[in-house]
Amino acid sequence: MDIAETIDQARQTTAAARRAGRTVGLVPTMGALHEGHLSLIRRCRSECDLTAVSLFVNPTQFAPGEDFDRYPRSFAADRDACAALGVDLLFAPSAGQMYPGDLLTWVHVNRITDHLCGATRPGFFDGVCTVVAKLFHIIQPDRAYFGEKDAQQLAVVTRMVADLDFPVEIRACPIVRDADGLALSSRNRYLDLAQRRSAVCLSRALEQARRLVAAGQTEATALIETIRTAIAREPQARIDYISIVEKEFFQPVTVIEAPCLIALAVYFGTARLIDNITVDPSNQRP
Amino acid sequence: MDIAETIDQARQTTAAARRAGRTVGLVPTMGALHEGHLSLIRRCRSECDLTAVSLFVNPTQFAPGEDFDRYPRSFAADRDACAALGVDLLFAPSAGQMYPGDLLTWVHVNRITDHLCGATRPGFFDGVCTVVAKLFHIIQPDRAYFGEKDAQQLAVVTRMVADLDFPVEIRACPIVRDADGLALSSRNRYLDLAQRRSAVCLSRALEQARRLVAAGQTEATALIETIRTAIAREPQARIDYISIVEKEFFQPVTVIEAPCLIALAVYFGTARLIDNITVDPSNQRP
Repeated sequence: MDIAETIDQARQTTAAARRAGRTVGLVPTMGALHEGHLSLIRRCRSECDLTAVSLFVNPTQFAPGEDFDRYPRSFAADRDACAALGVDLLFAPSAGQMYPGDLLTWVHVNRITDHLCGATRPGFFDGVCTVVAKLFHIIQPDRAYFGEKDAQQLAVVTRMVADLDFPVEIRACPIVRDADGLALSSRNRYLDLAQRRSAVCLSRALEQARRLVAAGQTEATALIETIRTAIAREPQARIDYISIVEKEFFQPVTVIEAPCLIALAVYFGTARLIDNITVDPSNQRP
Repeated sequence: MDIAETIDQARQTTAAARRAGRTVGLVPTMGALHEGHLSLIRRCRSECDLTAVSLFVNPTQFAPGEDFDRYPRSFAADRDACAALGVDLLFAPSAGQMYPGDLLTWVHVNRITDHLCGATRPGFFDGVCTVVAKLFHIIQPDRAYFGEKDAQQLAVVTRMVADLDFPVEIRACPIVRDADGLALSSRNRYLDLAQRRSAVCLSRALEQARRLVAAGQTEATALIETIRTAIAREPQARIDYISIVEKEFFQPVTVIEAPCLIALAVYFGTARLIDNITVDPSNQRP
């Protein structure tokens, strides 16, 4: 496995692969890899000749007061996990390498970023889009792999790629969950034991909502209230948002008439966790 | 010469060239080609294996009330000029091809866009950056050619390429002028005979300022006043701006202590013309 700490090194490896007619896949990560990331890497390996993983805790997508400083960093373990999976290129640049001077250029996606994390994390998606654009220009992948846990990020990046004609195919990969249902996240490492036990309420509440939709409930307000009540039972939980949105522009709906996303963000202590589920009213049980 | 009206066609031609190990150069234009454009094309031809010219009057860089509808269009003459110069690919997409739906994604460059055309043409540089990003993703050139007449555009695009790590080298090409000094522009076609005669005041005023700097005048206010007075003598001229800015961030200076740009925009009737000159106080005459 090549480990590139500079943009030039990363470009050399991928350019050589392209010249040899090999397809390049990219799995962009912030490290602290878990089974969710590993599932993206395996999928990339199965579809591309060269698998590149980027490992960069991107400062421009954290607002002041967010967890940039304490975001989990575990380079040695991440490197070993990548090597074990057969990753060809690990691109792990420093912040100075990615942002050598003032960053004046930003990529912004309108509308899809109005709600959910776009509303409660100002600047977050501008930071994501800008760093993803940089990574795409550095690695020039044929395909890039993103997890559905970050559903809004996936929609925003997919739109950016379409609008700006990036020659990259975005592959969406399903959420990976712990045995009890908690969606895997690097931020789960922030949870103490009580919070970890409590956090299972998120996936359970989403499942409960899915069953209600299957049983015919299509009123967003009623569904959100059910989820809110279930989560509020956990004393450690502090709700950021619970929303039901359509899946193109991520705008809130009042009635579920087509496949929609139920998405939430909830704090447990200082850990802000997100989760989501797609509900489809045409999948009602008889 | 291949003429591509769709993104897919353009990609096929350039992808085949890249696979064959040929370098690709792009000259982005809005058509109505003049000797300035042709100088970019010749330079591209001399440096790249495949020369692509894009010809697209980009609606997103025109504000409401600007001259999008009447911008000169001369496809047959442009096509013939490109063919005569040995252009390999002419990419001439429709607006529907470039913007098939709502455009939600924009590339924005801060600071360099604060003044000059950025101040008087709101949204202009967002439109330019966004369409240039799209063209770079479609053609994937190794080099792209821009004229120094659009000095602020050149600086903005160069910064965008650096900040977002586009794998493209930006080549700056000098202003081409008519015999009397008027900078060539597609918008010169808007001028009637009297306006055309009058418009020579722009390059003359800039030359006069350059001579004053060479003679030791470094006060921006005095230089701007000299230019303003010279242009105001022409009854048809209506000044948009006259500014002296440093060449990295295009911020106004009060004293010229390093190479600076003197830039102006002036209306003659409905034609808005721009011109600029670099002055260097270290080039003072003894």
